[in-house]
Amino acid sequence: MSLVAVVMGSKTDEPFSKETVQVLEQLNISHEVSVISAHRTPAKLQQYVESAGERGIQVLIGLAGGAAALPGAMAAWTTLPIIGVPLPTSDLRGVDSLYAIAQMPPGIPVATVAVGSWGARNAGFLAAQILGLQHETIRESYAEYRRGLQK
Amino acid sequence: MSLVAVVMGSKTDEPFSKETVQVLEQLNISHEVSVISAHRTPAKLQQYVESAGERGIQVLIGLAGGAAALPGAMAAWTTLPIIGVPLPTSDLRGVDSLYAIAQMPPGIPVATVAVGSWGARNAGFLAAQILGLQHETIRESYAEYRRGLQK
Amino acid sequence: MSLVAVVMGSKTDEPFSKETVQVLEQLNISHEVSVISAHRTPAKLQQYVESAGERGIQVLIGLAGGAAALPGAMAAWTTLPIIGVPLPTSDLRGVDSLYAIAQMPPGIPVATVAVGSWGARNAGFLAAQILGLQHETIRESYAEYRRGLQK
Amino acid sequence: MSLVAVVMGSKTDEPFSKETVQVLEQLNISHEVSVISAHRTPAKLQQYVESAGERGIQVLIGLAGGAAALPGAMAAWTTLPIIGVPLPTSDLRGVDSLYAIAQMPPGIPVATVAVGSWGARNAGFLAAQILGLQHETIRESYAEYRRGLQK
Amino acid sequence: MSLVAVVMGSKTDEPFSKETVQVLEQLNISHEVSVISAHRTPAKLQQYVESAGERGIQVLIGLAGGAAALPGAMAAWTTLPIIGVPLPTSDLRGVDSLYAIAQMPPGIPVATVAVGSWGARNAGFLAAQILGLQHETIRESYAEYRRGLQK
Amino acid sequence: MSLVAVVMGSKTDEPFSKETVQVLEQLNISHEVSVISAHRTPAKLQQYVESAGERGIQVLIGLAGGAAALPGAMAAWTTLPIIGVPLPTSDLRGVDSLYAIAQMPPGIPVATVAVGSWGARNAGFLAAQILGLQHETIRESYAEYRRGLQK
Amino acid sequence: MSLVAVVMGSKTDEPFSKETVQVLEQLNISHEVSVISAHRTPAKLQQYVESAGERGIQVLIGLAGGAAALPGAMAAWTTLPIIGVPLPTSDLRGVDSLYAIAQMPPGIPVATVAVGSWGARNAGFLAAQILGLQHETIRESYAEYRRGLQK
Amino acid sequence: MSLVAVVMGSKTDEPFSKETVQVLEQLNISHEVSVISAHRTPAKLQQYVESAGERGIQVLIGLAGGAAALPGAMAAWTTLPIIGVPLPTSDLRGVDSLYAIAQMPPGIPVATVAVGSWGARNAGFLAAQILGLQHETIRESYAEYRRGLQK
Repeated sequence: MSLVAVVMGSKTDEPFSKETVQVLEQLNISHEVSVISAHRTPAKLQQYVESAGERGIQVLIGLAGGAAALPGAMAAWTTLPIIGVPLPTSDLRGVDSLYAIAQMPPGIPVATVAVGSWGARNAGFLAAQILGLQHETIRESYAEYRRGLQK
Repeated sequence: MSLVAVVMGSKTDEPFSKETVQVLEQLNISHEVSVISAHRTPAKLQQYVESAGERGIQVLIGLAGGAAALPGAMAAWTTLPIIGVPLPTSDLRGVDSLYAIAQMPPGIPVATVAVGSWGARNAGFLAAQILGLQHETIRESYAEYRRGLQK
Repeated sequence: MSLVAVVMGSKTDEPFSKETVQVLEQLNISHEVSVISAHRTPAKLQQYVESAGERGIQVLIGLAGGAAALPGAMAAWTTLPIIGVPLPTSDLRGVDSLYAIAQMPPGIPVATVAVGSWGARNAGFLAAQILGLQHETIRESYAEYRRGLQK
Repeated sequence: MSLVAVVMGSKTDEPFSKETVQVLEQLNISHEVSVISAHRTPAKLQQYVESAGERGIQVLIGLAGGAAALPGAMAAWTTLPIIGVPLPTSDLRGVDSLYAIAQMPPGIPVATVAVGSWGARNAGFLAAQILGLQHETIRESYAEYRRGLQK
Repeated sequence: MSLVAVVMGSKTDEPFSKETVQVLEQLNISHEVSVISAHRTPAKLQQYVESAGERGIQVLIGLAGGAAALPGAMAAWTTLPIIGVPLPTSDLRGVDSLYAIAQMPPGIPVATVAVGSWGARNAGFLAAQILGLQHETIRESYAEYRRGLQK
Repeated sequence: MSLVAVVMGSKTDEPFSKETVQVLEQLNISHEVSVISAHRTPAKLQQYVESAGERGIQVLIGLAGGAAALPGAMAAWTTLPIIGVPLPTSDLRGVDSLYAIAQMPPGIPVATVAVGSWGARNAGFLAAQILGLQHETIRESYAEYRRGLQK
Repeated sequence: MSLVAVVMGSKTDEPFSKETVQVLEQLNISHEVSVISAHRTPAKLQQYVESAGERGIQVLIGLAGGAAALPGAMAAWTTLPIIGVPLPTSDLRGVDSLYAIAQMPPGIPVATVAVGSWGARNAGFLAAQILGLQHETIRESYAEYRRGLQK
Repeated sequence: MSLVAVVMGSKTDEPFSKETVQVLEQLNISHEVSVISAHRTPAKLQQYVESAGERGIQVLIGLAGGAAALPGAMAAWTTLPIIGVPLPTSDLRGVDSLYAIAQMPPGIPVATVAVGSWGARNAGFLAAQILGLQHETIRESYAEYRRGLQK
């Protein structure tokens, strides 16, 4: 059973989702990884997100570029917290993705992190902060990571 | 039976949807108008869009601001052409909406028009151009409108 | 006889127009391809666009970068639907092209798609959606493509 | 004892913090509100944030405009999750605040929401989603709010 | 006979064209003013611009907002110098117009001035500088204006 | 004696000034080329610009990046027409240069062209259009260039 | 004798220069205020700046909008430190001014502060910090101001 | 004893801090260099900055990218002048860093310089201008540098 679901919009986003996963592994947070597009496979996304809670998922992370509807579409189908990672696009460089993810309408928030690699990693750390409120081992492993930064 | 479905993400978007409707009426194009949010009522949106074709709808218009997922979410549930109108937001002024609507991933296009009032009206005119390919009366009413611009 | 006219503003835009053509071929949509500049050869453009309808063209696609007047200039000479693809420029990266194509004044719309490669492909898919309203084989080939995305 | 700490950078930000508070009250989430500047009173901020956990605070919300260092500075002094609300500025309209809050370096995330009023409200809803993982009454009150949106 | 042709894309642009005209009158430069849209009345624009040289026009000024194709379309039909004034739009505030006018492709330049009121006036002054190369009275009236600024 | 003065702000701008020069040579327009910085050598710039008219210069072209004060500073010391070419910068990519050159205050215009290579070439063509008003051979060589574009 | 020279590019910038002056007065820093345009009266600016050092001026503040060459032009004529305040423009809202002032080439820096009112005030505070290195009373009055912020 | 403290937010910023150091060395200005993150090691930053004045530091330079809180956080802990260098980020290219550093609230200024390499060097030159007010040898070495630019 996993606590975190990492979803990317396209297989080509894998270099970024791997950075998220690396942080989750470093902090010993159980997770699962999927490729589901909000636009190409909306029914699959709905099904995946609606069943996430029952499977024990507590935090969902969506990575997407361009119109970047993925994290918002995930938020639409659940009341669990969603973290959105805006990925860079070849020409507009992710400013499009950042606006598309951050500017959610009232009621359905997405916790947006930085564009690209920084954000992909911070999605993992933010999940740790959220899960750490209940899971002492996660709270401690993140706290230890933070103490490590002091050196 | 309507040929065009006009969907806005929020009741507050009505000043803009009314501009679209005014153009459709001026060109004698049958239409229906709804308020459905991609984020707050995704199931309602899915149902509405999936049944649109059977009800005779040929073109769908989505008006939305901010993350502006509406037109893209509509496109995800149908193969009919979708026109997206980026609405201005109070602070980023619609540049967010424009990026969120135009930057759709390959396979699922949205026909994006201008931000705000110009776009709301052009959504109606673009619907006329598309429908005019099959419907001679619409083709002629748009052509007449264009001839009227010459004076 | 072709249903779609693909026009690029400059021979250097060919890498992008080829992506559009590839989609049209994949969906079995007849098309013709031209290089015509709105600024360098406006009379040629006028002639080409004004005669397009008589030759059976139903949808025109214009790809252009920078001031990117091509799709709008095409729209000015016809009542057929125009799809505009904003191409990236070396420094402003296509945000110039996107604004120049999307921000058309009321009455003369251009159906704008994403900047660059995503948009070049989506121009083909949007043409398919529009033509699919009348041409059952095109509607079916696009629907099949969409079903293929589910896997 | 409060679960959520709402911190604004300046007294002039109060119209926005009130929108956050209104959501927290609507969902029956205990909270406290303060005015502390990251730049003018850094020691006070440090003290406030470092002691927050002991006082039972689980989520901190920082609202700020311009250089908008507040949420990031809060994140620097705690391992609790921080939600950042980018406020509009008189000239750059909050695009400055959005970049300053979202672009946090790896390790120290801020959960960024929309610019201005939408974000101020979504900070409250995001806090509810996070707290709802442990607090059943909060989970239920947010779920009820979401069900209410369906009508 | 006029030396300068001032063309605006829409009657609503008149507050700006009046600022251009005021400068031309202040410097005693003969001029004519027209409303012609590049998109709505392209044939009229072509005719107007192609005949401008024969009528003695030496400099053309185009004021337009949004896709702002007017100055570039004028440049396409003549070899006379064209000055382009980017007008503010209600949402994107003229950054769209600036890009659409300045980013002309090689071979067909438009002399772009500032967005809005500053640019509308500078179009008149730039016309004076250009015409002043041949017309001594214009050169002198602009020089006198410049001397007046010293006080 | 030269008709056109090409001034670049830094020796590193030479790849762009060479594109301007190539156009001037192609059209047989006499010219001189200098490296003078508005910020590092303001007295030299003043002297150069103030004496330009006496030496027979009729049009000045300034190429600069970043704060890009060069063309505006040239305009401040003369009443001759100035063409400004915004050069790309390593990070902001020339949007800084474009704003800094185009947004001149009323009374002291700079004829701004596109960012980078397109603009460097168009500076030459714009000079030809301006000089062509008096110099028949230049008018004819530019007209011939334009006719050549038709093929 | 004044320690600080406050220069605005245009009389219309006075609402902002008054905010700078108010801070200087609050901190008891002697100052003089002038209206001098870098573009309209470059010789006057040169003279003013070159003589500033002899008159005892130690810090110069330039407020300007749009192309906003003023602070950079001041920096070109002196080796004293220059503070630049980017003023908002009616359409581009000061993002133009910010780029034009901050992006100075190596060797000739301008100490840039925030756009508009915040920056106008901070120009006064930055002058106090710089002058405080030598002038104990200024150092103390700024330190007292900072202590006052703690309450 | 050093007069200038150069602080970078991350070891990866060293290519830029080296450019600052090179200028300081060229002008014979004593300095020290540190890597301290505002977000990862806030206590270390506080301690470093608060003790800087006692150690004889007169000017502090902070280089940072993204949320780029470093220079502002330094300014919060001292009344000495702070110079901020916005570093380019991989996707938003430093426009984020520029806004985050320049847009400081009233009372706590940061002297912002250009994005990236130009700014890194200008931080050194600006420090020289500020220190030159008291230190004649620094004033002279900068003045000599400036005279060298004339050749």
